[in-house]
Amino acid sequence: MERTPFLNASRTTLEWVGEYLTESEPTPVASQARPGELRAALPDSPPVEGETWDSIWSDFQNLILPGITHWQSPNFFAYFPANGCPISVLGEILSTALGVNGMLWATSPAATELETHVLDWLVEMLGLPEAFRGQGVIQDSASSASLLAMLCARERLLGPEGVETGLTYSDRPITVYTSTEAHSSILKAAAILGIGRQNVRFIETDDRYALLPSALEAAIVRDLESGCRPALISATCGTTSSMAFDPLEPIAEIADRHELMLHVDAAMAGSSLVCPEFRDWSRGLERADSFTFNPHKWMMAHFDCNAFFVRDPKLLTRTLSVTPEYLHTDQEEVIDYRDWQIPLGRRFRSLKLWFVLRHYGVEGIRARIRNHVALAGWFADQIREDPRFELAAPPALCLVCFRLRGNDTLNRQLLQTLNASGELFLSHTALADRFVLRMSIGQTRTQRPHVEKAWRQITQTAEAILAKQTPDQSP
Amino acid sequence: MERTPFLNASRTTLEWVGEYLTESEPTPVASQARPGELRAALPDSPPVEGETWDSIWSDFQNLILPGITHWQSPNFFAYFPANGCPISVLGEILSTALGVNGMLWATSPAATELETHVLDWLVEMLGLPEAFRGQGVIQDSASSASLLAMLCARERLLGPEGVETGLTYSDRPITVYTSTEAHSSILKAAAILGIGRQNVRFIETDDRYALLPSALEAAIVRDLESGCRPALISATCGTTSSMAFDPLEPIAEIADRHELMLHVDAAMAGSSLVCPEFRDWSRGLERADSFTFNPHKWMMAHFDCNAFFVRDPKLLTRTLSVTPEYLHTDQEEVIDYRDWQIPLGRRFRSLKLWFVLRHYGVEGIRARIRNHVALAGWFADQIREDPRFELAAPPALCLVCFRLRGNDTLNRQLLQTLNASGELFLSHTALADRFVLRMSIGQTRTQRPHVEKAWRQITQTAEAILAKQTPDQSP
Repeated sequence: MERTPFLNASRTTLEWVGEYLTESEPTPVASQARPGELRAALPDSPPVEGETWDSIWSDFQNLILPGITHWQSPNFFAYFPANGCPISVLGEILSTALGVNGMLWATSPAATELETHVLDWLVEMLGLPEAFRGQGVIQDSASSASLLAMLCARERLLGPEGVETGLTYSDRPITVYTSTEAHSSILKAAAILGIGRQNVRFIETDDRYALLPSALEAAIVRDLESGCRPALISATCGTTSSMAFDPLEPIAEIADRHELMLHVDAAMAGSSLVCPEFRDWSRGLERADSFTFNPHKWMMAHFDCNAFFVRDPKLLTRTLSVTPEYLHTDQEEVIDYRDWQIPLGRRFRSLKLWFVLRHYGVEGIRARIRNHVALAGWFADQIREDPRFELAAPPALCLVCFRLRGNDTLNRQLLQTLNASGELFLSHTALADRFVLRMSIGQTRTQRPHVEKAWRQITQTAEAILAKQTPDQSP
Repeated sequence: MERTPFLNASRTTLEWVGEYLTESEPTPVASQARPGELRAALPDSPPVEGETWDSIWSDFQNLILPGITHWQSPNFFAYFPANGCPISVLGEILSTALGVNGMLWATSPAATELETHVLDWLVEMLGLPEAFRGQGVIQDSASSASLLAMLCARERLLGPEGVETGLTYSDRPITVYTSTEAHSSILKAAAILGIGRQNVRFIETDDRYALLPSALEAAIVRDLESGCRPALISATCGTTSSMAFDPLEPIAEIADRHELMLHVDAAMAGSSLVCPEFRDWSRGLERADSFTFNPHKWMMAHFDCNAFFVRDPKLLTRTLSVTPEYLHTDQEEVIDYRDWQIPLGRRFRSLKLWFVLRHYGVEGIRARIRNHVALAGWFADQIREDPRFELAAPPALCLVCFRLRGNDTLNRQLLQTLNASGELFLSHTALADRFVLRMSIGQTRTQRPHVEKAWRQITQTAEAILAKQTPDQSP
């Protein structure tokens, strides 16, 4: 593609993107595509000769878009905030065009240095422990960050020889601790790292779905007595299911007492630390060995952009560093981020985050987060005031878990009807063995009218469902 | 950022990108930045208030670009082809703007279905085994793909209970086999998976740097006799160092005979299979359990875009699938790619690959690969005909390994002088314990004049170095 046709095609593309990201509210929010629908519409074979931009663009519009769930819509209230913004797109465009591989400092110095630098900015912005300064790295996701934290714990326990021998020679299981409400990535990491799923101890939670420190300590003591090797506590600050916060101070005490490493997974809630008034949950964080959160979740940097801070990166690099001659450079005293991650190659992901931080400034990001929290607070108030509904967990930050008073069938029906309308998209969870709807309010463009409209639709749909309710459906 | 300022800023951005990707030949190709230079130029703290687009753009130009090594330059001959192209940028822009998370089919059906579909196109285009149809997935890199292949082998060996117990309960090491020329990711994967570095058997190679099947079988037999559990052979087709090809047919025989899984890592060379005349090396691939190559290396899709095909994805999903209620959908008979990878979240990476395949068509991609191979052939001829130089390995596809006849010091000096000129960028390797220069010719815009200019500069620089040579530097 030469310059002029590229510029023409990019104009079409960017005009669509501008509309999509600043004004459009596409419906249905959740794609209504059926399995196999897109594949059936695509040719079985790739084209032999090149096709025109017009035909590619037209297929994007007509075939791809109907299969898209609009995660960037202000009416997307499902899962978690997954919000980009226009300036982040510009950062990604430049990062894509440069196409550098930042595996080593030497393969593009700016890619490494900007990354370390903006992660230090985050240390300051979020009031993170000073020990994390210079020790940050961008990963693709919190899943990878948590896996690396668990790897550090495994390596510390095995000692420098562990990377050579592997896990094969021991009959005393390594155990890791997290709450029953922790993210699925903890179990996945234990499986990948060869620690074994059965050696993940899921600690019970209190009535706010936060880990119970007394149960944690009891589990560790039990394991120590039976010859296990406790390695890691993974505390969750802002669980995916209900935004519960494990209490870091007592957990850090326990980690210290029994010499376990402490990882803090704040994938979703971490961005809130930019506001001093939301920092209560981070007391004790200064004693953590690692911390992760997702600027791609609630700080408007497009996925993927996970921030991972680790107190002692040597635990990472001693396991992950392999330097064949073709990657050897004479450069000393620099960070080679390939040794801080699973893949060798890496994109220039800090560019979009830098663009976002500069465009909004700290106050701009604070204002957006405060607005989301206020909207979630307003929504929680509506639930409290409506006798047909109940809160299913303490509302926190941008998440409200709620349900219709009644059985799970009613609540499933409510969710399905709402999502099938195409006007908005919510997801669900299970709390105390009950089906619960989740209202997650953190998209870049979500404002009061969107939340009010959602609430109107929720109440109207609930009314219709309750009116049709037959006696055997009642609780 | 509202629509109009976004459109204005995107116009500036795209005009620069258009120039950068179609016409510019920026120098120096390899950044000459010194460690800490960029960080020193950046403010210690993030801005409190938002900044203007003009100041962001100007810093991008003045601070970031000097720290960039121009991987997209037609004068970039280092490492491996890492070439994007303008249409791939457009695909990435749309994928970024949509900002969907394709973790589940249900979270954006088009993201999953287009991925399966274009990977099936690759099966046809590359003449891959039919067993890989419907079994492809995009990973970030071949490192991750190889790790997953090793995970499959570990899980097959451990049986369904393995994911629960982990590696802890056995005293018989799991062993994996690869050549001394294999990619660093194999050793890294063994470390991460708890298999242990010392259980990677590096098998000697022949004088063309290809794995010696007799040595492979001897190592497996030896390990079986001593109670090890051989799990995986990772064959490399197109080594990073010298583009050597392990012979798949005899290796597949050995894998069958001893019931090991066979993974084929063709990260760099895989794209060449699009040309029927370059398929010799893939004989035996139909017996492989998994295969990976990088469309982001030599098929003009921007990083990251690795293609990974696996005969029995159940080995992956039984280890990687964890479904908490908040990710549960009622959808049956679809692929949820989160269970085929380490992270949970995933970008819509197939869009750029689809754009590339449609824009160029199969013949367009073939023509570009053939051109690179012809240029590398021309370059190898120059080496052969110049008595001052020698080939350090058989030239293959787009890679020529060469050196000045003389000692390593001379060759190091040649490389350093060439790269310091800023006019081009080469990297090096070690072959037979000697320092070797690598000329990798696979960037999208590299044409005959670029290679001729490089050759002129190489000979002129060599002349100058040889002229200054003092007697004690001679071989």
